[in-house]
Amino acid sequence: MNYCSDCGATVSLKIPEHDDRLRFVCDACGVIHYQNPKIVAGALPVWGEQVLLCRRAIAPRYGLWTLPAGFMENGETTDQAAAREAREEANASLRDLRLYTVISIPHINQVYMLYRCELVSDDFSPGVESLETRLFHEHEIPWGELAFPSVRKTLECFFSDRKLGAFSVHNLGFVIPKPAA
Amino acid sequence: MNYCSDCGATVSLKIPEHDDRLRFVCDACGVIHYQNPKIVAGALPVWGEQVLLCRRAIAPRYGLWTLPAGFMENGETTDQAAAREAREEANASLRDLRLYTVISIPHINQVYMLYRCELVSDDFSPGVESLETRLFHEHEIPWGELAFPSVRKTLECFFSDRKLGAFSVHNLGFVIPKPAA
Repeated sequence: MNYCSDCGATVSLKIPEHDDRLRFVCDACGVIHYQNPKIVAGALPVWGEQVLLCRRAIAPRYGLWTLPAGFMENGETTDQAAAREAREEANASLRDLRLYTVISIPHINQVYMLYRCELVSDDFSPGVESLETRLFHEHEIPWGELAFPSVRKTLECFFSDRKLGAFSVHNLGFVIPKPAA
Repeated sequence: MNYCSDCGATVSLKIPEHDDRLRFVCDACGVIHYQNPKIVAGALPVWGEQVLLCRRAIAPRYGLWTLPAGFMENGETTDQAAAREAREEANASLRDLRLYTVISIPHINQVYMLYRCELVSDDFSPGVESLETRLFHEHEIPWGELAFPSVRKTLECFFSDRKLGAFSVHNLGFVIPKPAA
């Protein structure tokens, strides 16, 4: 950030009064431009014993497999965002969405919120951001070609919970340990 | 938003190519400025049979009671954000944080994520954003003086679940119905 989006003047990084962290503050009008984490909403669509994955047609991780997911938009709920992403990336309709994994990734300022759900039908196909969409049995999952750690973790939770016969919400953080002093 | 935060030129609202909604796009450098919902992280701190509420010393809803909560910051996890808010607003230390309510409020582009947790001790006091901090038994809750519907809903879930003896994660959205045509 270089310029104030309100008045167009330059901004400086400083700690505002009554605050304890650096913010971009306008040099002219004084407005503080807060920056906050983004939600990545998505789905783990299930069809019988199989789950739906999409092969990415866009950067980053072009060509790797992912669950349909993307940045939540203003004006929608988290489950609406998950359903929209499945529509956009896989032309898939979902039902029975239940919040399943909530994964903070603080070093990139993202929080994943992924919903376990049922596919309404096996009528799906790649959207513009996908090269391929496919159902996978557990033994077919391309573990070495998954796009993101959050996708891997969510699939691991799912197959583990399914064996136990009990699903719960998993909330975790991918925190990179600080190097030893 | 009036000016591009990258280059300082003016921005216009338009639908970018391959997109389906209005965005602020820079008239000079073409950068698209996406705007996304914010996470409000907070806590429902429990001490024996009682829960901790804070009376707000700031707008909006000055003087009304709330759970300690606020905007999640970059570089933290959702549970770290909840613990920080309890520290800032009530000088309270928490333990055993478990994700409890996830509430989308699409008309103000917020997602509440509130954690059920234990107070480490009954040593707490108002932070600068609170007029008062107090423990409440269920029959003492000031239902008519709560600051936000998300706080009311979370307390209702808690006392209801506690009677049942079973807590689960509650995911919901406060969607304002569209007026009939």
